[in-house]
Amino acid sequence: MANENKKMVDAITPMDEDFAKWYTDIVKKAELSDYSSVKGCMIIRPYGYAIWENIQKILDGMFKALGHENVYMPMFIPESLLQKEKDHVEGFAPEVAWVTHGGSEKLEERLCVRPTSETLFCDHYANVVQSYRDLPKLYNQWCSVVRWEKTTRPFLRSREFLWQEGHTLHETPEEAIAETEQMLNVYAEFCEKYLAIPVVKGRKTDSEKFAGAEATYTIEALMHDGKALQSGTSHYFGDGFAKAFGIQFLGRDNQLHYPHQTSWGVSTRLIGGIIMTHGDDNGLMLPPAVAPVQVVIIPVAQHKEGVLEKAREIFEELKKDFRVKLDDSENTAGWKFAEYEMRGVPLRLEIGPKDIENGQCVLVTRHNRVKSFAKLDNLKEEIAKKLDEVRDGLYERALKNRENRTWAARDLEEMKKISAENNGFIKAMWCGNPECEDKLKEAAGVSSRCMPFEQENISDKCVCCGKPAKSMVLWGKAY
Amino acid sequence: MANENKKMVDAITPMDEDFAKWYTDIVKKAELSDYSSVKGCMIIRPYGYAIWENIQKILDGMFKALGHENVYMPMFIPESLLQKEKDHVEGFAPEVAWVTHGGSEKLEERLCVRPTSETLFCDHYANVVQSYRDLPKLYNQWCSVVRWEKTTRPFLRSREFLWQEGHTLHETPEEAIAETEQMLNVYAEFCEKYLAIPVVKGRKTDSEKFAGAEATYTIEALMHDGKALQSGTSHYFGDGFAKAFGIQFLGRDNQLHYPHQTSWGVSTRLIGGIIMTHGDDNGLMLPPAVAPVQVVIIPVAQHKEGVLEKAREIFEELKKDFRVKLDDSENTAGWKFAEYEMRGVPLRLEIGPKDIENGQCVLVTRHNRVKSFAKLDNLKEEIAKKLDEVRDGLYERALKNRENRTWAARDLEEMKKISAENNGFIKAMWCGNPECEDKLKEAAGVSSRCMPFEQENISDKCVCCGKPAKSMVLWGKAY
Repeated sequence: MANENKKMVDAITPMDEDFAKWYTDIVKKAELSDYSSVKGCMIIRPYGYAIWENIQKILDGMFKALGHENVYMPMFIPESLLQKEKDHVEGFAPEVAWVTHGGSEKLEERLCVRPTSETLFCDHYANVVQSYRDLPKLYNQWCSVVRWEKTTRPFLRSREFLWQEGHTLHETPEEAIAETEQMLNVYAEFCEKYLAIPVVKGRKTDSEKFAGAEATYTIEALMHDGKALQSGTSHYFGDGFAKAFGIQFLGRDNQLHYPHQTSWGVSTRLIGGIIMTHGDDNGLMLPPAVAPVQVVIIPVAQHKEGVLEKAREIFEELKKDFRVKLDDSENTAGWKFAEYEMRGVPLRLEIGPKDIENGQCVLVTRHNRVKSFAKLDNLKEEIAKKLDEVRDGLYERALKNRENRTWAARDLEEMKKISAENNGFIKAMWCGNPECEDKLKEAAGVSSRCMPFEQENISDKCVCCGKPAKSMVLWGKAY
Repeated sequence: MANENKKMVDAITPMDEDFAKWYTDIVKKAELSDYSSVKGCMIIRPYGYAIWENIQKILDGMFKALGHENVYMPMFIPESLLQKEKDHVEGFAPEVAWVTHGGSEKLEERLCVRPTSETLFCDHYANVVQSYRDLPKLYNQWCSVVRWEKTTRPFLRSREFLWQEGHTLHETPEEAIAETEQMLNVYAEFCEKYLAIPVVKGRKTDSEKFAGAEATYTIEALMHDGKALQSGTSHYFGDGFAKAFGIQFLGRDNQLHYPHQTSWGVSTRLIGGIIMTHGDDNGLMLPPAVAPVQVVIIPVAQHKEGVLEKAREIFEELKKDFRVKLDDSENTAGWKFAEYEMRGVPLRLEIGPKDIENGQCVLVTRHNRVKSFAKLDNLKEEIAKKLDEVRDGLYERALKNRENRTWAARDLEEMKKISAENNGFIKAMWCGNPECEDKLKEAAGVSSRCMPFEQENISDKCVCCGKPAKSMVLWGKAY
């Protein structure tokens, strides 16, 4: 049995050898996801889906605490509806899936499977918003969306993915902009506090912003290999969509006005971010807040009298407050240690005959493998403390990686050199011209990740053309 | 403001005048759902979606307590995969939506949008099941599915709807059949205990069973108008799908075997069932377990000193244990009474100056409009008791309606007469021949709802052909 169940933990490709292969090895071995017969679409397996459920639960609570309500819109968008906002359709039409037949009948009008739902929300808002008293509308939707990507990777880029999309409507531009910023802050807080992923908040350049948006805000995280991952975005639309869809409200001044709109989303891509931020050559490392199993209890010398009983007693006690698993299978303790390390369980609790004698157990934190003893009569507090330590340890490690991989470049030569030698964030000034962005992509292989809200003055001149700089941009190689 | 917000409660069509119109009036006025620009697809608005979230939360807990795990499968099924099980494709192919293009390119193989996911689960199971140690697989998925219906009605029948689909795989037929029955019991318990909807448990006849199933179990509820609503189904597949998809496991005897399979689902249709079981001419009546607002607090003479303060104090206290809303808007108390009755809020709490003086408040239960006084210092217990009363009152009323509308027929003439004069359940014996089922549909306008697990002996002969009867069938007119 031990033999048959044995995971070949040593068969994970080392990160330094091939990071992409390491990633897919982890996804497969930790049973997060599996390939399906539908090209480019993934199956999310129980262990991966449980992470998503934990993410949903926390975020949904944060959204609702701010007054947002959940709704459900159709998954199809009639072609004519998609075409109502010019920039939007140009951005999305090339990558949507088209439904042309219902049963054996050809449809009069093609329907696309939603790549995002601005058009559907606007269509509904036009029906239900009449007066300023109907505003703000603070809606959110949890669903799956489809974008016909050419190259796909589990969690990071797939033809179908799960996400939430918030869509809100406000009386004034100020309120809408405040909402856009607020939701970016919610995402940043969620990533840092719960996922232990440090992020840079900033604004996208015009060439990188969402199709139809006036402004796109983003949180950018740096993965272990130094590549950047756009982890959440929040868009301000002005009244562009409202005008295209004829959404109007009677204002306090008794005149008709167009409302101002936002949308914001995060997706199962966050799971990719967790893997690539925290994992190591032994496997996953999961932040405690979203780990399906927070503590695994492993009895040592479990055939000895009293060991299994004690382990079960601890399990029953701990499961009131934590997500706990007791592995009392007949696999060796060594196999179990490796298995749950690979699965990224934040905390391991070992209990053997000697421990029981001493009224204690052994705790091992996944992120640094530090071993400590804990008294059994104070276990709950001790475990809560250890889980906080894991979260903090993961965060510090990720922050250090980002700091070690952040450079500043003053001119094109310097940028090319840094980019050729490293992966990471490069801070450099920009004149605001999209041609310079294009040129940097070609010459240095980097794209603009964002204009960070926290600006620094690296120099006065554009890193590319040398003309006067308008802002500091964070550049990088992106997933 | 009162005027502008005023809901024309009296504009709900009376049930007896036109039940179908009454239904759509309620759906629209209570803001449960709205029509969309996508023909046959509905928008689920915040108040309707909150009911669904409460349904999900309770059911998901029941599933997990029995060891089920959630997963996510792709929303698309390649045509070749759908075709692997012959009966299944015949049942579903005529009513699926087909994706033929991704972006501007024609797909090599058409993909249908899942009408149900047996084929996808089987495809995955074939990859991950090797040994009897991998069994049982107890998976569930919350998602939306698409069936290209010709005639649609919000919640009852729409081209896209939300549901959960459980898919399990077992070592033996006995275990799989036990699972099929267990999940039907879960559905029945959920409907009766939480939705206050009495149901009949039974087995579908062969002509009514799920495409590809060996046996389909169902729970059937009777709506206020006497029509039947199939409210949840649980299917036993035997090893038919396993053989079609090549799912095999190494058994305890070291031989290869085909596993035995089940699937089971309930959908947003349950919301339609709630509306049509409990509602009246004043609007919705929501069972407390899933009501988005369980208690509405309405201050009376709220401009008088201390009233609003007290109302807010009660609100703050109650919201720790219940879903509570305080309406301190400037609408009249009378308007508010009608509004929250229409929205089906189970319990109304009125508090005015005199009540405060007496240290009490008024409680009014929605289902019978009975008024009572409750001491403010014992409010939590009193409210919990009242909510239980509402649940019990709704259940009793629905059960009585079903009893009043259940008849027995001994021959075809009797059945035709009952069916011509009433809507309801008709108990009658059946020989087992599908031709008799067809004939009853034509002659009496009824279809077989199920063969109830609790059999009675109405007579010895088939109600249609007079040949020896095999079982008692519950017949009815169905939604």
